Amino acid sequence: MILRLQRDIIKAMKHKGFFITLEGVEGAGKTTQIQRLADALGDAVLVTREPGGTPLSEQIRDIFLTTAAMSATTELMLIAAARAQHVTELILPALNAGQIVICDRFSDATVAYQGYRKGIDLKLIEQVNHIATGGLTPDVTFLLDLPPDIGLQRKRDSDEPLTRLEHENLASHKKVREGYLAVAEAEPQRVQLIDAQLDADTIHNLITTESKKRIQLLQTS
Amino acid sequence: MILRLQRDIIKAMKHKGFFITLEGVEGAGKTTQIQRLADALGDAVLVTREPGGTPLSEQIRDIFLTTAAMSATTELMLIAAARAQHVTELILPALNAGQIVICDRFSDATVAYQGYRKGIDLKLIEQVNHIATGGLTPDVTFLLDLPPDIGLQRKRDSDEPLTRLEHENLASHKKVREGYLAVAEAEPQRVQLIDAQLDADTIHNLITTESKKRIQLLQTS
Repeated sequence: MILRLQRDIIKAMKHKGFFITLEGVEGAGKTTQIQRLADALGDAVLVTREPGGTPLSEQIRDIFLTTAAMSATTELMLIAAARAQHVTELILPALNAGQIVICDRFSDATVAYQGYRKGIDLKLIEQVNHIATGGLTPDVTFLLDLPPDIGLQRKRDSDEPLTRLEHENLASHKKVREGYLAVAEAEPQRVQLIDAQLDADTIHNLITTESKKRIQLLQTS
Repeated sequence: MILRLQRDIIKAMKHKGFFITLEGVEGAGKTTQIQRLADALGDAVLVTREPGGTPLSEQIRDIFLTTAAMSATTELMLIAAARAQHVTELILPALNAGQIVICDRFSDATVAYQGYRKGIDLKLIEQVNHIATGGLTPDVTFLLDLPPDIGLQRKRDSDEPLTRLEHENLASHKKVREGYLAVAEAEPQRVQLIDAQLDADTIHNLITTESKKRIQLLQTS
């Protein structure tokens, strides 16, 4: 099974598809930007999210977002389980079919939320991420960066109910941001840092232009 | 959080409690033997099971037993999530309080079911088990060994509905047995191999005598 997954990934590395992820703290505007990017990129676009994306992963997402008492390791493993299923069942088949996949959060979120926020050893996170993804990494990641107090205020002003994570205190959200910025610093080529306080049209243009450029590069290479 | 877990485990290594696990293929008679062992060992006994043991872990167990399409890695990670929660929330606190804990399946089951049955790399299993348990291992494990055709027949003769795993073919169950026997061979001091075709009273006496002997050794050491 693992061998089959590895084969699929090797295939996926050579596909005509393109894997885009958006990351950011609560209220950074990911949902809006993902929808606009998908519209701009045309037909063969699969939009998905983490934790979730498959029926099983959505079940895990429900547990994850509604359970109050959970150890940090449990949280890490649940996310990993949902991601493993998501990659095998949805993301890899789509990439192998030449689709563009846009995912709302992926493995970088685990570094930020379970690593920096929960204090789980970052080497351990890396190990578990590698097991869950089988080594698949995004072709490009857009990090919508926002001071967490502004992000939280945006969420509170909206009509959506707050999730368990959003109820946590500001210090916790600051750690998440710190984690994301560390990821961007460590992989500046893959991770594009974007100021989420720019107006939505500007952000949309930045993301779409960069995505199209990279997709074209891949197609002509 | 991880540091706290490690501290708890170091404490647990020095406790007055005792950690017993029972392992075996379907129909080997674990449930009966666990109940009889618990009765024989007296009051301070906590009986629990995997996957499960806490409300969250039981939720995960439900997903695990009722979902048909699941990648091997997803299965491994779900089991690990349930185990991490089980260890932190239930097993370690009980051991620290000096209780005897009897658990129906633990990390050896992951070697047998996800390693040998599903073909996941055994080093990976070991890594994930270590993360989930934080290094906690049973003081003694009783492996009720049974040819899987006999075990499955026992299950079919009973009134209980068959779970997803029990519906799998005989070849799959043979691999599980092979995995268990490999574990017993690798750790003969911890893992006591018991012929599950012996009569129930004999098995009960073997298990109880060995458990009492080891508990006494621990108390006088």
